[in-house]
Amino acid sequence: MERRSFLKQASTGAAAAAATTLAAPAIANEPSIKWRLASSFPKSLDTIYQAAEDMAKRVKELTDGKFDIRVFAAGEVVPAFGVADAVQNGTVEMAHTASYYFVGKNKTFCFDCAIPFGLTSRQQTAWMYHGGGLAATREFFREFNIINMPGGNTGTQMGGWWRKEIKSVEDLKGVKMRIPGFGGEVMSRLGVVPQAIPGGDIYPSLEKGTIDAAEWVGPYDDEKLGFFKVAPNYYYPGFWESSTQLSFYINAKEWEKLPATYKAALEAAAAEAHVKMQAEYDAKNPRALASLLAKGAKLHRYPNDVLAAAFKASQDLLAEENAKNPQFKKIFDQWNRFRNDSYQWFRVAEQGFAAFAFNQKV
Amino acid sequence: MERRSFLKQASTGAAAAAATTLAAPAIANEPSIKWRLASSFPKSLDTIYQAAEDMAKRVKELTDGKFDIRVFAAGEVVPAFGVADAVQNGTVEMAHTASYYFVGKNKTFCFDCAIPFGLTSRQQTAWMYHGGGLAATREFFREFNIINMPGGNTGTQMGGWWRKEIKSVEDLKGVKMRIPGFGGEVMSRLGVVPQAIPGGDIYPSLEKGTIDAAEWVGPYDDEKLGFFKVAPNYYYPGFWESSTQLSFYINAKEWEKLPATYKAALEAAAAEAHVKMQAEYDAKNPRALASLLAKGAKLHRYPNDVLAAAFKASQDLLAEENAKNPQFKKIFDQWNRFRNDSYQWFRVAEQGFAAFAFNQKV
Repeated sequence: MERRSFLKQASTGAAAAAATTLAAPAIANEPSIKWRLASSFPKSLDTIYQAAEDMAKRVKELTDGKFDIRVFAAGEVVPAFGVADAVQNGTVEMAHTASYYFVGKNKTFCFDCAIPFGLTSRQQTAWMYHGGGLAATREFFREFNIINMPGGNTGTQMGGWWRKEIKSVEDLKGVKMRIPGFGGEVMSRLGVVPQAIPGGDIYPSLEKGTIDAAEWVGPYDDEKLGFFKVAPNYYYPGFWESSTQLSFYINAKEWEKLPATYKAALEAAAAEAHVKMQAEYDAKNPRALASLLAKGAKLHRYPNDVLAAAFKASQDLLAEENAKNPQFKKIFDQWNRFRNDSYQWFRVAEQGFAAFAFNQKV
Repeated sequence: MERRSFLKQASTGAAAAAATTLAAPAIANEPSIKWRLASSFPKSLDTIYQAAEDMAKRVKELTDGKFDIRVFAAGEVVPAFGVADAVQNGTVEMAHTASYYFVGKNKTFCFDCAIPFGLTSRQQTAWMYHGGGLAATREFFREFNIINMPGGNTGTQMGGWWRKEIKSVEDLKGVKMRIPGFGGEVMSRLGVVPQAIPGGDIYPSLEKGTIDAAEWVGPYDDEKLGFFKVAPNYYYPGFWESSTQLSFYINAKEWEKLPATYKAALEAAAAEAHVKMQAEYDAKNPRALASLLAKGAKLHRYPNDVLAAAFKASQDLLAEENAKNPQFKKIFDQWNRFRNDSYQWFRVAEQGFAAFAFNQKV
């Protein structure tokens, strides 16, 4: 975003409101600070991308314009998957990213984002803020010189678009599917041949037949890429992303230099962006799903044997990682107790309500 | 909270952090403002009550101590159910409350809190921030001179404690149940004799046999009141509170006088308290449920015929209110479209995941 339009946008909040008050205040003795935030996301993923802009706008309002964080889309100053390194070495002060992008460094990053058959978004948020998750992940991030904060959540993602219908786990054998990361490893154990393909290349690959299936995010983002035209079977749930948390990364040394009011501004603005980004997806996805169905998408639940096989493969993968990665295991043991307790509780009041109510005509 | 302990608490954030930085800033030209916030909740409902304290602490940190909101528990300066009037007439600048307490003024207040067979907490948050809910409820609140902001959510509540097991809707006839408000009206149509009894009087009433059943909140709050000892049948879901949103109320004239940075501070701190309070319940309830079961609570889902009858009664009540209350109907029509779309979407990825995963052994 240009500086001019950024200022214009900010003025609809801070400056406009100040004009209506008698005493227009100034944070006179605060230092003026300019930071750069590298997003891992293109502007086309507008719901996710906007969370960083919203956070930056709020920080600016809270500090009367003095703490100015400029947001850059993926590739503008740093490549999408280079943002962790860029924050670590101080190229930028901040990033907005999905921590599972750095699974190649260490799978422990996934606890800050998504684990197959992991936590739903409410459970993840509860674990982070009140279940020990923020402390546990921050201890891990310390070696990367990064302070992490939750920065949005997509909720449970969809299970992707398939050219052919999947009637049992047998139908997965040999299917080339665009599914990166941990989810790809799970699918690989079920016979799928996972492919890592950037977002913009998925549609042409499906159209040409280079791949037979692809997962992306959920109805709102999926609709824009047009997958329904070439692979209309739309499966749920995306069990490898029971929820996908985004994160703000802050260079730890830059963080320590901030005055207390600016630290508070970042924490409050990040938490606000976290809850509002999820709310935005939850408001947009219902309409997008209806639109996709009207355009011919065919909705299917993964068959029970696929879910059961995927669950077993996920548990096996987690056990194997625990056996070889002490940092992973340290967080896993605490996280898994939380997951177990949380599953027991959420299947009661929440599930008891949802399973009945969501099937009523209202 | 005493001023001394408030300052001590604040010092763990702002002051302590400032000590580690070279330049300790000061918001030199900002006005010093002291506000009072009347909570509708006793300190014993600690998760809900604390959301107001957390919001006030964050506002103080964001403004370098200059915007000081002192929180008073229910009854300290204003009775629990008098806080809307107190904000409206300027006795206090703010309140933290559950809007359905004011159903006697107008049932339209319920959209800001809970409606039988209404929205889950994620759906409610989505409706408020990105589905038109905040604009719609604020238009309604204008006549009360109040600006409302979401301030926490309990999630789907439990369905209460019953002395005897409920096997069908027949078993509800004539049962005296502590259940206030809209939920009481629904239950009344199913044959229950609803009673409005304050929290502290519920246990003695159950013990003496004055009532046969009682609903309160969820495992964490319910355990403290000991209901399991005298009415061990613990039912779910609390379909009259599919989620219960708490709200901050701000006197509209006082709001307009605030400098823009203080308005931003209140908005950000309220949103942060909103998400973190929900997270705290979601972290506490699982352990409390396990503890209650260990102490002899017997968990039951309401029978299907009870849920079906309650759903029909709720729809009838909403239709009757629409017929006589144009303010209610105006919001209802928009809300109900959101509810329908949201139910259609949430039964896909979220339900598809939850229904499978929450029943696995992890």
